[in-house]
Amino acid sequence: MKGKMRVLFKKNPGPGAEMGLADIPKPASKEVLIKIKVSSICGTDLHIYNWDSWSQHHIKTPRIFGHEFSGEVVEVGSEVTSLNVGDYVSSETHIVCEKCFQCKIGNGHVCTNTKILGIDIDGIFAEYVVLPEVNIIKNDLSIPPEVASVQEPFGNAVHSTFVDEIVGNRVVVFGCGPIGLFCCSLAKSAGASFVIGVDIKNYRLKLAKKMKADIVLNGKKDDVIGEIMKLTEDRGGVDVFLEMSGSPDAIQQGFKVLRPGGWASLLGIPSAPFEFDISEHIVFKGATVYGIIGRRMYDTWCKTQSILKSKIVDVMPVITHKFKLEEFEKGFQLMKEGKCGKVILIP
Amino acid sequence: MKGKMRVLFKKNPGPGAEMGLADIPKPASKEVLIKIKVSSICGTDLHIYNWDSWSQHHIKTPRIFGHEFSGEVVEVGSEVTSLNVGDYVSSETHIVCEKCFQCKIGNGHVCTNTKILGIDIDGIFAEYVVLPEVNIIKNDLSIPPEVASVQEPFGNAVHSTFVDEIVGNRVVVFGCGPIGLFCCSLAKSAGASFVIGVDIKNYRLKLAKKMKADIVLNGKKDDVIGEIMKLTEDRGGVDVFLEMSGSPDAIQQGFKVLRPGGWASLLGIPSAPFEFDISEHIVFKGATVYGIIGRRMYDTWCKTQSILKSKIVDVMPVITHKFKLEEFEKGFQLMKEGKCGKVILIP
Amino acid sequence: MKGKMRVLFKKNPGPGAEMGLADIPKPASKEVLIKIKVSSICGTDLHIYNWDSWSQHHIKTPRIFGHEFSGEVVEVGSEVTSLNVGDYVSSETHIVCEKCFQCKIGNGHVCTNTKILGIDIDGIFAEYVVLPEVNIIKNDLSIPPEVASVQEPFGNAVHSTFVDEIVGNRVVVFGCGPIGLFCCSLAKSAGASFVIGVDIKNYRLKLAKKMKADIVLNGKKDDVIGEIMKLTEDRGGVDVFLEMSGSPDAIQQGFKVLRPGGWASLLGIPSAPFEFDISEHIVFKGATVYGIIGRRMYDTWCKTQSILKSKIVDVMPVITHKFKLEEFEKGFQLMKEGKCGKVILIP
Amino acid sequence: MKGKMRVLFKKNPGPGAEMGLADIPKPASKEVLIKIKVSSICGTDLHIYNWDSWSQHHIKTPRIFGHEFSGEVVEVGSEVTSLNVGDYVSSETHIVCEKCFQCKIGNGHVCTNTKILGIDIDGIFAEYVVLPEVNIIKNDLSIPPEVASVQEPFGNAVHSTFVDEIVGNRVVVFGCGPIGLFCCSLAKSAGASFVIGVDIKNYRLKLAKKMKADIVLNGKKDDVIGEIMKLTEDRGGVDVFLEMSGSPDAIQQGFKVLRPGGWASLLGIPSAPFEFDISEHIVFKGATVYGIIGRRMYDTWCKTQSILKSKIVDVMPVITHKFKLEEFEKGFQLMKEGKCGKVILIP
Repeated sequence: MKGKMRVLFKKNPGPGAEMGLADIPKPASKEVLIKIKVSSICGTDLHIYNWDSWSQHHIKTPRIFGHEFSGEVVEVGSEVTSLNVGDYVSSETHIVCEKCFQCKIGNGHVCTNTKILGIDIDGIFAEYVVLPEVNIIKNDLSIPPEVASVQEPFGNAVHSTFVDEIVGNRVVVFGCGPIGLFCCSLAKSAGASFVIGVDIKNYRLKLAKKMKADIVLNGKKDDVIGEIMKLTEDRGGVDVFLEMSGSPDAIQQGFKVLRPGGWASLLGIPSAPFEFDISEHIVFKGATVYGIIGRRMYDTWCKTQSILKSKIVDVMPVITHKFKLEEFEKGFQLMKEGKCGKVILIP
Repeated sequence: MKGKMRVLFKKNPGPGAEMGLADIPKPASKEVLIKIKVSSICGTDLHIYNWDSWSQHHIKTPRIFGHEFSGEVVEVGSEVTSLNVGDYVSSETHIVCEKCFQCKIGNGHVCTNTKILGIDIDGIFAEYVVLPEVNIIKNDLSIPPEVASVQEPFGNAVHSTFVDEIVGNRVVVFGCGPIGLFCCSLAKSAGASFVIGVDIKNYRLKLAKKMKADIVLNGKKDDVIGEIMKLTEDRGGVDVFLEMSGSPDAIQQGFKVLRPGGWASLLGIPSAPFEFDISEHIVFKGATVYGIIGRRMYDTWCKTQSILKSKIVDVMPVITHKFKLEEFEKGFQLMKEGKCGKVILIP
Repeated sequence: MKGKMRVLFKKNPGPGAEMGLADIPKPASKEVLIKIKVSSICGTDLHIYNWDSWSQHHIKTPRIFGHEFSGEVVEVGSEVTSLNVGDYVSSETHIVCEKCFQCKIGNGHVCTNTKILGIDIDGIFAEYVVLPEVNIIKNDLSIPPEVASVQEPFGNAVHSTFVDEIVGNRVVVFGCGPIGLFCCSLAKSAGASFVIGVDIKNYRLKLAKKMKADIVLNGKKDDVIGEIMKLTEDRGGVDVFLEMSGSPDAIQQGFKVLRPGGWASLLGIPSAPFEFDISEHIVFKGATVYGIIGRRMYDTWCKTQSILKSKIVDVMPVITHKFKLEEFEKGFQLMKEGKCGKVILIP
Repeated sequence: MKGKMRVLFKKNPGPGAEMGLADIPKPASKEVLIKIKVSSICGTDLHIYNWDSWSQHHIKTPRIFGHEFSGEVVEVGSEVTSLNVGDYVSSETHIVCEKCFQCKIGNGHVCTNTKILGIDIDGIFAEYVVLPEVNIIKNDLSIPPEVASVQEPFGNAVHSTFVDEIVGNRVVVFGCGPIGLFCCSLAKSAGASFVIGVDIKNYRLKLAKKMKADIVLNGKKDDVIGEIMKLTEDRGGVDVFLEMSGSPDAIQQGFKVLRPGGWASLLGIPSAPFEFDISEHIVFKGATVYGIIGRRMYDTWCKTQSILKSKIVDVMPVITHKFKLEEFEKGFQLMKEGKCGKVILIP
């Protein structure tokens, strides 16, 4: 396919972004060209939009950003065997080398040669994108395009929640952004005894209730530690701590309410090192702590699709706003204010 | 048995300790009286001897301290069924409640009602001690009394080293005190590809070589991070990081040299919180981190005994000094100077 | 407490059972006396009632049988610390030695010195029973007595279902007696993608539908293998096979529909060895197979109680009939005919 | 490279094989051409040579057979990025689709579209072979070519032995052909308490002693069950049973001596279904049983290479004979008689 396409991109270093035109990319022999139906905004996109310190070090302009999407295959490379024009797809957004030690032992999610869509290469806030065949996920036709678009962060939640045992356990989720919200519902749908959602914004706590959190606590207003310890007195704390906020305060609180012998998934990314009591929080507690990055390739995706197809979890309450791609500023503004779940952009 | 026994105890708050006399204790129905053959000094005993801040908060005087020993059963309570007078024994030193949630699910090592021998109750720097039947470990007759005495810290090493996969993996051990030294030999004897020992005292690094460390590095003199990364370049770091030092510097270095997807056991206890980069060290790395406390009851002990009986590991090089109980000051002095492995005291 | 109590017992070898009187037993120092509120009939009780070959070798008469119950503590031994008169309780029915290797490493469920309630010692088809403190489970007051009574077989299902991964997986349960029915609901409630129940009695398949099985198949009428393979074509079979029937045919079929790399729990007990294709069913498939016996002590119980208290699973549809203890013949007759779920007996 | 090469092949259906000439194959874009330095004979090759029932159903003639080898890359396809001419290599012999569910979740070893070298496609009893880049394993230069050739079956042993816990455990290996011999040494080198090798040929039992088996038993002459139960009385049997023989008798014996709660790897392939007591051997025992096929791709290979490079296991005693490819009949004859370990063929 030839011609130009509309894109949302960061033209030069600095805050903001703008619409523009770019060449429709051409798939190589093992790649496919996808027409984007629906895209969605990730917290990382907001960092890029805001041009924070991390973005300044990781983004080279000009760069089309965005990585969450669903779309349709419109052209396939000459050696592609598992995909056809017309397929309804989304994509793993980490493009890995398949040759390093981590990839060889099935740990592609920590491949040291990873290229990330919308960060290291041009992303999907555009009409089209080219991606390697191996990264493409065929969506079940029963999954709405908005849901298919958010299944990439949903996969983060699947990875975080199911790295260890959930059933019959009491779970606290710190940080009720979209990934934390997914965690609430996933844990509860997988037999958690009860799920506590913690955030500092009431808007998000309301969403947490919709996403099956049994109890919600406001980190600024409630006695989070006291309340949780009261609820879990017989076990000395929660069995499972899912850290989705990146806030040092939340991390400290989460470990304080984790019971001896409990486990924690850490996905949130604190922006700087901070004082942490390894003795109390990990050693004496005999805790098991999992660092979570990306999605396991591709067992997390298989599980994700299975969960979505079976309607075990209803993702829709998390999708709160929908705009045209050109209206991107409205979406980023809502995210800055924390007054949204997931924001959809239609190119 | 009636009468008095010689003991080493902390009479009043403050540094040091002294010899004295105490009543030989009387076993209750589910307890046994043991005559101590051999005892050994733990780092915790040095803390108590030095009367550091931790000791001031945890030790009530007068207190007989010490917890590592081997000895002989000389009297059994009326309901004891698995032990007889004459049995050659040592003991798990954590006396747990068997009734809390942690105990009920087989995690007695994190029982919140734990009483520790020589800390919360009178210990074994004495001629006799009384202990619950359930805590007693029958030693194989082929195991020398010195070795039987140090199997409690050896069990810490077994717990730390075998919580995840070792065979074919590259292992770094930070902190080559007795537990770290055991870890070196255990990892190598269980098929580690190679083992690197790190410490800041050459005396201990020499012991590490004797305990099968393939490479030793001095944290004060060598480029620890550079050397390890060179040795493990193809995997982006070591597969396994065993933290046995409690030093914040060591912990930082250990995580820096841990490969993406690697695992760490943390047993060393930093004396205070410190600045830690959770994002780099755990999250982005997709690391798995195990807090290690005590020994699993009693699978760690079964494994420990099996290893000692099979002579898979030779513990003797770690045992560097032997004194009479009355000469305790010599032992504690050597420990202060870091010029010893394990010090034995004979009551 | 002194006096006589009504009991249902096997007086002499041979089919059937009869009501009688026995002394109310006396708790020893670490035991408690329980007044039975509700009991329920297990398949094993039917074997004993029928006096089949197994019973002839395992039961010494006279024997009070039965082991599933809930009741109230009415007397406690002198050394009991965790229970009080009035406590609402049930019991783990395997009385284990706590001293063998299996017990020591936390595998009490395969203790080789196990004594089973109602088989090796007098059981609970009676007004009272004496049991060791360590075996007693305190029930949450919100759990109805009938449900508390069946939590012992429910625990078998918990053990079978959660020994490996369920969430997002497709599960087949062969054998929809009470334990199989519990498995259906447990798997579905823990996020199974879908659950298929297989039995040869329509009565039970109807119960399976009530217990959240998405699909039910009649092993005598439906093309079980064909249907399941069609439903799971994309994975080459189901991910999980839970064998609760003990039927050689079911075992063969279950392994045939298990996908390569899948896992199986085997709890049903074939009455004799049979021709089994280890190459096809286990080796070539790279399958993982778990033998399931009893409940893990006591993590299965903790999970069981947590699940029941959280109302994750509704057990009530499985409880289909309730009789007075004296009406026991009606209950055993229904079980023979397979025209019941769980039958309750009230002493 | 053009021209003809010498090959050992099965020209027509029927017993035996013959030398011949074939075109040197041409690598496609993602393939490499390898010059075979050393090959070795697998039990499967003997089946093909003998033209047994399995071979008649799986081998289409003409077919070059053989799959174990080491060699040198002499030509690379246009898109090969990780290999160069001159590289010293061996190969995973299962060529998998990378697209089925099993491949996607990292279980390529049970890919249902697997093509096996020397069975489904032409093999390596030849001067050259063409293989996909992704299958190629770069050998460390310190590994002798004979050892590099046998690392494919060595990988089977690595897969079997390390699927669960070995350290401190007592292990029995049934079947002391090359894979069983490797298992003996691997288990012992990874900290097994002791290893028992069982076979019916004394030649192989002698090799087992060389490969670190502590005890060897002749299944035809010794009281295998009695001896093992005596050695493991305190645990009620061995902790680990590695089945490498495919003999129904061995499988029965192995399960009989497995302790309650123990684990088993089944790799040997019985030629037909046989009477098996699932109740006694798996259910009542609470055993965990792993079906083992191939090697995990590619974590087993990474571990294998790490073990060989670190000299943890000495493979050489297993390699007992070396012939020119033309002398193949000598090799197959020795294998028929069971009077060899591994037989090397030099093309």
